[in-house]
Amino acid sequence: MSGARASSIFDVALDRTPANFRPLTPIDFLLRAGEVFRDRVGVIYADRRRSWGEVAERCRRFASALVRRGIARGDTVAILCPNIPPMLEAHFAVPMAGAVLNALNTRLDAATIAFILEHGEAKLLLVDGELAPLARAAVARLARPPLLVDIVDPAAPGEPFGTLDYEALLAEGDPEFVPSTPADEWDALSLCYTSGTTGNPKGVVYHHRGAFLNALGNALVLGLSPRSVYLWTLPMFHCNGWTYTWGVTAAGGTHLCLRKVDPAEIFRLIAEEGVTHLCAAPVVLTMLIHSPPAVRRRFAQRVIVGTGGAAPPSAVIEAMDAMGFHVVHLYGLTEVYGPATVCVEQPAWDALELRQRAALIARQGVRYPTMAELRVADPETLEPVPADARTMGELLLRGNTVMKGYLKNPTATEEAFRGGWYHTGDLAVLHPDGYVEIKDRSKDIIISGGENISSLEVEEVLYRHPAVMEAAVVAKPDPFWGETPCAFVTLKPDAAPVDAAEIIRWCREHLAHYKAPKTVVFGPLPKTSTGKIQKFELRERARALAREEASETR
Amino acid sequence: MSGARASSIFDVALDRTPANFRPLTPIDFLLRAGEVFRDRVGVIYADRRRSWGEVAERCRRFASALVRRGIARGDTVAILCPNIPPMLEAHFAVPMAGAVLNALNTRLDAATIAFILEHGEAKLLLVDGELAPLARAAVARLARPPLLVDIVDPAAPGEPFGTLDYEALLAEGDPEFVPSTPADEWDALSLCYTSGTTGNPKGVVYHHRGAFLNALGNALVLGLSPRSVYLWTLPMFHCNGWTYTWGVTAAGGTHLCLRKVDPAEIFRLIAEEGVTHLCAAPVVLTMLIHSPPAVRRRFAQRVIVGTGGAAPPSAVIEAMDAMGFHVVHLYGLTEVYGPATVCVEQPAWDALELRQRAALIARQGVRYPTMAELRVADPETLEPVPADARTMGELLLRGNTVMKGYLKNPTATEEAFRGGWYHTGDLAVLHPDGYVEIKDRSKDIIISGGENISSLEVEEVLYRHPAVMEAAVVAKPDPFWGETPCAFVTLKPDAAPVDAAEIIRWCREHLAHYKAPKTVVFGPLPKTSTGKIQKFELRERARALAREEASETR
Repeated sequence: MSGARASSIFDVALDRTPANFRPLTPIDFLLRAGEVFRDRVGVIYADRRRSWGEVAERCRRFASALVRRGIARGDTVAILCPNIPPMLEAHFAVPMAGAVLNALNTRLDAATIAFILEHGEAKLLLVDGELAPLARAAVARLARPPLLVDIVDPAAPGEPFGTLDYEALLAEGDPEFVPSTPADEWDALSLCYTSGTTGNPKGVVYHHRGAFLNALGNALVLGLSPRSVYLWTLPMFHCNGWTYTWGVTAAGGTHLCLRKVDPAEIFRLIAEEGVTHLCAAPVVLTMLIHSPPAVRRRFAQRVIVGTGGAAPPSAVIEAMDAMGFHVVHLYGLTEVYGPATVCVEQPAWDALELRQRAALIARQGVRYPTMAELRVADPETLEPVPADARTMGELLLRGNTVMKGYLKNPTATEEAFRGGWYHTGDLAVLHPDGYVEIKDRSKDIIISGGENISSLEVEEVLYRHPAVMEAAVVAKPDPFWGETPCAFVTLKPDAAPVDAAEIIRWCREHLAHYKAPKTVVFGPLPKTSTGKIQKFELRERARALAREEASETR
Repeated sequence: MSGARASSIFDVALDRTPANFRPLTPIDFLLRAGEVFRDRVGVIYADRRRSWGEVAERCRRFASALVRRGIARGDTVAILCPNIPPMLEAHFAVPMAGAVLNALNTRLDAATIAFILEHGEAKLLLVDGELAPLARAAVARLARPPLLVDIVDPAAPGEPFGTLDYEALLAEGDPEFVPSTPADEWDALSLCYTSGTTGNPKGVVYHHRGAFLNALGNALVLGLSPRSVYLWTLPMFHCNGWTYTWGVTAAGGTHLCLRKVDPAEIFRLIAEEGVTHLCAAPVVLTMLIHSPPAVRRRFAQRVIVGTGGAAPPSAVIEAMDAMGFHVVHLYGLTEVYGPATVCVEQPAWDALELRQRAALIARQGVRYPTMAELRVADPETLEPVPADARTMGELLLRGNTVMKGYLKNPTATEEAFRGGWYHTGDLAVLHPDGYVEIKDRSKDIIISGGENISSLEVEEVLYRHPAVMEAAVVAKPDPFWGETPCAFVTLKPDAAPVDAAEIIRWCREHLAHYKAPKTVVFGPLPKTSTGKIQKFELRERARALAREEASETR
């Protein structure tokens, strides 16, 4: 292979051989854990503990059974399951059969699941009993339904299909099965659909190389070790658990499974199982912060919390810190294997007050050691913006932990990769210290009287109000200003009554006046299936408000 | 590229692009550190501290100047230099120019250096002033001498050539130079010559992919972070500092340079600079343990010490522990980028006594997370040995952190890679817990009366004798037994007088009697240029002793 450009002594007779070249794959992390930590607990769920040796054997059986059932390279195997052990096992066993894992978002509706199963051409679908009704409704819509496998969890048996049981499938398999490692590390490993606020979801394809590298990046960034106990608060269907499914395994840590995000159970596990790490969207952190005192537990260790999916308001970082959690801010998207940047805390920040530090940590930070390049730039010219903390540009990424592309969608892939960079669609500034701060999604910027207003900046101030639990700000059409900020606010359960005028006064105290919301709406916020606030829905409500006002004034 | 075997939906229109594929290279670690840690101290030497921003700029200048001087892809740039900043800079700048770094062992003789410069075809040689006499003698032997660059360290100016100064070379370069990253991650990155106890040294070629991966493996294994301060006790010429040159940079830690291994200076730096990590061969640890009390310093932190190159006797692990060091046992060879296995300490070992734990840690352990496979096997059939802690086999390795091969030596490369595995030449057993323990180099096994005796096992017992500082055991020809163990022993400076009978009695108390040495010779031990005990020289002495005895009895 080096023949074509053989121009130096280093290109002669120094080729790849089985001794010195092996396609990178996260499968190797499981095989290593199964050997090195054979007798140590690898996976805990409820009162069941399995050693890494047992987990590896179950994955070998699972992969072998898939192969015997006709699953082959490039086939899709889907799973609809909460964060229980079979979900984790699928992350290794499906690729070990050469197949591609499609972990489905359990909060989707049947029509969307049907779309995904059809688009991804799933040949086999594993379903948790509790989710069987949803799967049943989805599969009913398919011309060629996949083979259905029931995962029956004694803790929540639900309504299984009764066709084939997961444990029975494993029993079919060979515990000594030699896994298929990919012939090419560029081979597809998994398929994750974006939640897609408009139109059909897109199928993001990951390869073995990228998952291997992001897993190592994750282990480095959160300091995972064989002594880590990782609590699965983050759904594994979300970018394969931000690739921590593979990352925790690479480090030889322990996975602590969790069927439901329940603050009481989370505090209990932290206190009783010595949890060292967890990941969660800020909304889950808010839930922990506002959990009733009765469910809170004291714990001796400092728990490292990777958060992302949305920027954590600095008030959330402060409150978590006070409770014994050390928040690490990660940022990423489905297209980049989950996290791609981390707000590395510089030792010089140690001297700062917590509030100042939290404000720095609320920024998205710097690229992972495993991501090749990051740039904040004009999305058309790709010209970098100055590091002045003011000039906005699009956040662009390139490197080995950017997706293979969108399945069956070359147009969208080309659009996402135009100019040789992955376009995140997030608008950011670059600080003089080289740290990125996202100001908004392109479509979330509010333009009022010709001035750009970052909805995130306004939300940050709202979150600091003592009565506010959650807040979201969107543009409301305005005949004079073009747009004005409109705030949607959920108050804390135990908050004293607060009115719109008080909220607006608070914002004017802490922001340039033109950035303060002109409208404040109280009530619960609509969320997507992954727990993100549905801004498109709020924008719709703001437009409706504007129409009402227009008809009243007329 | 996927066209040839396009058989699934995942092989269509999902190809490599500049957005999602980038050859792996440790150069990216420097570029990231230069951005992310621009204002933090990256390299410390004597009273000089340079930020990562400055270090990255110096490397850009250095690379640019090399290119302007005609250095191109596949050219070799050699360096003869202790662990001072230019040595570290060369590890990034030379590859940034597309060239291959050949870091020379500073303890070699002129003839060997001349051989290496000629064999590696070095086009440019950087020389530290103190080493200029050695370089002068080597270069005098060459038909086509390389361009010589003087590194003048004010702390030890030595006798520079006076042709071209390193700082003047840097001044020629462009601080904004855009580095050449390799077109192919399989491209050569560096060239390290084995010390070669017999015959000419062999040139081991590393590629960018392997160095990138081993650097990440190192960072994970020793838990490096941006807060790490790594003391350069291990020569950077030794497997590129076991690839910690790149690993510490990947983590964004601080490199603390050190011209000479001097216990007083080492203790001072640990105490005053907050050293968190260092690597060193056991012989250096022995030196620290036996350093005079006056030079020892107390320090608050627990320093993690990666040791390897020879198995650390458990007495050394214990003594280091008592002094505030936590020893991590690494094992590897030049052919596998330095460390390839680590003796991971299982949490279950925490309950053991230090002595028991030290005995477990003295084993070579398990493969790095970045090494694909390890096997203890019959070197001919490749059949794995049982995990019975008794059956010996050769330690075999395969994966991406095995060398590209030996330069201009396809026969040796094929021999080393026979059967698709890298053959380490080390004889090992596999313990029931999956841990490897090396019993000896193939040629270091003593066969006495048909029984195999591991020289390492005897040495382990010798090191436990209170008067012994260093010990080595080799085979001595014997007319009756075939071979018998012959011990060479250096006593501690302050040890009470000890005779051979006492040493032999000690061994018989702690070993099967047939394993105890029949001969004990006192005095200093001959060392190779990398500080390893020269067993071939001791074998020669043992054979001479045997001949003398034979002539006396005749």
